[in-house]
Parts: sequence; C-alpha cells; structure tokens
Amino acid sequence: MAEIQYSLRTRAETLFRKLQDEITAALEILDGSEKFFQETWERPGGGGGQTRILKEGSVFEKAGVNFSAVHGDAPESTAENGITFFATGISLVLHPRSPKIPTVHANFRYFEQTNQHAWFGGGMDLTPYYLDEEDAFHFHRTIKTACDKHDPSYYPRFKKWCDEYFYIKHREETRGIGGIFFDNLSAPTVRELENIFAFVEDAAYSFLPAYVPIVEKHRDEHYTEDEKHWQLLRRGRYVEFNLVYDRGTRFGLETNGRTESILMSLPTVARWEYDAHPSPGSPEAKLEAVLKNPREWI
Amino acid sequence: MAEIQYSLRTRAETLFRKLQDEITAALEILDGSEKFFQETWERPGGGGGQTRILKEGSVFEKAGVNFSAVHGDAPESTAENGITFFATGISLVLHPRSPKIPTVHANFRYFEQTNQHAWFGGGMDLTPYYLDEEDAFHFHRTIKTACDKHDPSYYPRFKKWCDEYFYIKHREETRGIGGIFFDNLSAPTVRELENIFAFVEDAAYSFLPAYVPIVEKHRDEHYTEDEKHWQLLRRGRYVEFNLVYDRGTRFGLETNGRTESILMSLPTVARWEYDAHPSPGSPEAKLEAVLKNPREWI
Repeated sequence: MAEIQYSLRTRAETLFRKLQDEITAALEILDGSEKFFQETWERPGGGGGQTRILKEGSVFEKAGVNFSAVHGDAPESTAENGITFFATGISLVLHPRSPKIPTVHANFRYFEQTNQHAWFGGGMDLTPYYLDEEDAFHFHRTIKTACDKHDPSYYPRFKKWCDEYFYIKHREETRGIGGIFFDNLSAPTVRELENIFAFVEDAAYSFLPAYVPIVEKHRDEHYTEDEKHWQLLRRGRYVEFNLVYDRGTRFGLETNGRTESILMSLPTVARWEYDAHPSPGSPEAKLEAVLKNPREWI
Repeated sequence: MAEIQYSLRTRAETLFRKLQDEITAALEILDGSEKFFQETWERPGGGGGQTRILKEGSVFEKAGVNFSAVHGDAPESTAENGITFFATGISLVLHPRSPKIPTVHANFRYFEQTNQHAWFGGGMDLTPYYLDEEDAFHFHRTIKTACDKHDPSYYPRFKKWCDEYFYIKHREETRGIGGIFFDNLSAPTVRELENIFAFVEDAAYSFLPAYVPIVEKHRDEHYTEDEKHWQLLRRGRYVEFNLVYDRGTRFGLETNGRTESILMSLPTVARWEYDAHPSPGSPEAKLEAVLKNPREWI
C-alpha cells in the first residue's frame, strides 16, 4: 500500500500543478489584457504553494488560481504514533466584470494520512447573475460527461451534494446553479483509489470546456448600471456563503491558513442593502427562483 | 425573586424602546436629509421587534437601529420543566458616508430564563478609518465616566473584553479602536442586579454623547477618492468580523433569526483586494498599527 500512496501523492501534485499552468494560461488568453502575478509561499510546518492572481482585467475583475502541497505532523500526531499528513490541491474562483458572465469556482484536492487513508475531494459550481438555461445545460452536461466515464452514479450524487453544500441557509437559497461537489472520496483497494484519481483528473480537465464557452458567449454583451448593481448585491451573498458556511474557508481561517490565499475567493466589491428584492417577473427574480428551487438541468 | 425579575423585564424593555426613539431622533437631526423607515416584525414563537433603517443620507450611508423583545420556550424546555426565556435589546450600527467619520456599533440587552437567572450584555465600539486620538480619547472617556459611576473595575475590565471580543484573528488586528463589551453580567442578589441595570442604563445613555460630537467634528471635512477606497477595504474587514466571528450574528443566522435585521450591520459597499497594505508612514498605516496593538486611551 505504501508505494502506491506515494505514487498517487506525486501524481496528484503533478496533476494540480499542470492544471494551474493550463488554466491560468487559458484565462490570460481569454482575458486578453491582464496577466496573472504569482506569489510563492511556504508553510512553516512543511510545504507551500503558489497563489496566482489576475486583477482588473478586461474580462475578469478578479481571478485567483491557487496551488498548494503541504505536509507535516497531523493534528492528532504524538511521539508514539508519529502520524503525518500530506495535502495537495488546486482552488480557483473567477469573478468576471460583466454581470452577464457567471462567477465560477472549482477545487480539486488529494489528502493522505500515514497508516490511515487517502481521499479526494473537489467539484465546481457556477454562480450566474442572470439565468441562461443553455449555459446551465452546457455546464452541467460537460461535467456529467466527465463523471459518466467513471461511474453513472457520480453525477446525480455529486450534483445533489453540490446543491446541498452551497446552500445559504439564512437566505433559503443556493449560492448558484450548482455543478458537482464531493468530499472524502476514498476506496478500500488501491485499484479503486486509482479509479477515483482517474475520475478526478477527468473532472478537473472538464473545467475549461465547461466554463470558457460561457465566457466567450457573453463577453461582448452590453450591460446596464442596474444589472451591475444586481451583480454587487448577489456578490454580497457570495461573501455570506464563503464567510459563514464554506468549510474550507472557515477551516483555513481557524487553523492559521494563509489568509490572503483563502480570501482571494471574495469578490472585489460587494453590496448589502436592507431587504432588497427583485421585482416580480424580472430577470433577477427568475434567477432567484432557481436558487430557491434547484433544478435538474439534464 | 419572581416579582423583581418581572419588574426588571418591563423596565429593560421600556428603556430599550425609549433609547431607540431617542437615538433615531438624534440621528435624523444629525443627518439632516433622510429619515428612518420602520419595519415591525413578529417572531413566530413569541414577541417581535422594530427594525429602523436610514439609508443614503447625507451623513449616513446606512444606519440601522433595531429594537426587539422576544419570548417563548427555551431551547432546553421540556413538558416537565417548561423553561421559558425572555430577551430584549437594542442594537445599532451606523456606517457614515465619509471615511473621516468612524463607523460605530452599540448593543444593550437583557435576558432572563424562568427559574434560572437574568443577565445583561452590551457595549459599544468605534471603528474609524483614520485615527484621531482626540476622538478616541473622547469616546473612551465618555464611556468610562458612565462606568465609573457604578464600579471602578467596569471600564478597565470591559475595555479589555472589547479589545478581545472584536478581534479578527485571521488578520491579527482588532475591528476598531474599541470601547466596552460585557456579557452575562449577572448577580446573586436582586439589589446587585438592580445596580447592574442602573449601569446599563447609564452606559446606554452615554452612546449619543460619546459618538455624536465625533460626527459633528468631521462631517464637513473633505475626503479624496483614495480615502474612500481605503474605507471600503476596511469595510471588508468589518464584514469579515461580523460574518466569521460575531457571536450575535452567527447565533442569529444559525437559529433562524430575522436575517435582514441581523445583517443590517453590514456596510452598503465593501471591497477586497489581494494583499493590499497601506504604505509605511501613511495615515492608513497609522490606523493599522493601532488595530494591531490596542492602546489605553485614558
């Protein structure tokens, strides 16, 4: 078992490094005006990461694509058991300037603990400001195709998990129109764990084809001040989800994670107004209805 | 004991209602352009409140002054013990438009549980965007005077408690330059509980004299776009504190509180930029230094 765990560990880290390179390269081409800058950081207990940020671009107001690979003593480690952990992952949040282009989040990660087990987690989800059913269908279908190659139960399970995870309880609505989410995905045999890795690889590589066509479709659309205003209110909800509920964010902040890398997920600007509601029948109300009743897109 | 508890309950509710009226009246005069509107709400389990909001005023971008008095079965109530609770309080957050005027928060509350105990909580704290030592001194001295009338240990204890409570751990800084904070302030005898009520009354009435002179002093000062930009970044930190740490906010959101009344504390607009730091020696850096090392103002 030990050799295989090391092998997966190396391959997972390699995959996430490659993904960071490919995704940031594609996003720079898509943006056309700004480039990512990189900050390399080290974790005092072992390992580190690369945070890449593109800001004030023509398409993206703020785009963050983080890679990390950290290791060290597990919190439950003692002199006797000497338990260590290793975690590697990629995490990205893209906030476009235009309210016609959805915000997107994706995250894939691998975790292992000595003498215990190894697992994968991840997913991606779309947060539009205006509902475009064709976009929703395209995003979900692209992900479903990647899932179905590996296990027909994955997409329905992980789609449901996503709707449940990205739920803003105090607003009684989801953060966006979903995608997939999975965590602690493990297996009793090496062969099955290899299969999970193959799935994670395909799911991660489906990110660009799932999202980029949506950006290309809407990037030249006109938008009004009112539409921008609605986007900022919705971004307030994004902040609420991330700071109140997101387990990754809260865990990171509580365990002295790298604050700037964790909070790179927040939008540049967000608004809160007392009791603001879209007028009935408006495009804004149409989006809200879907957030209150998550739909099956396929 | 029972009669006295009822009496305190009625007097506490009356105090907080009166305070809401006096404070909103004073703030309308101070703002000079906009008025508060009121929403009255009922709590399904018993009681309700009045949320008053003033928005887009000439001085205040957003000002919320909430009153509530709620009662019902305590969470630990069973058919056998029939434990009930009563809670009343006033809570306010004022976000001025100008970065030269500090944001302020105040909250006073009374809580009692049948056959158990009664206690008070509250405090007020100032969140400037630029440090004015005279303001800090005035704010703290006004509060200290109210505290000292009742117990010389109150101000030093509650000032320290405030610095500790309004601490943004992941930023290693306080939310603002403090004030006082106290919770679960109770007493074994009726007489002592009455003394605590008298203290809460004086502390609550010190709010307007502690804050209003600061507004009057800075209301006509000019400010630049850069100063407004810094205010929005600091408001991001305000949002971080409220959503990640504030126990009242988190408890309210988790227990199906009235979301709009709870989140009225958030500023209209907040900004997040990756790794933004004020330049050394700037007025912005001077504020940051005080947030990292809370000072004794008196």
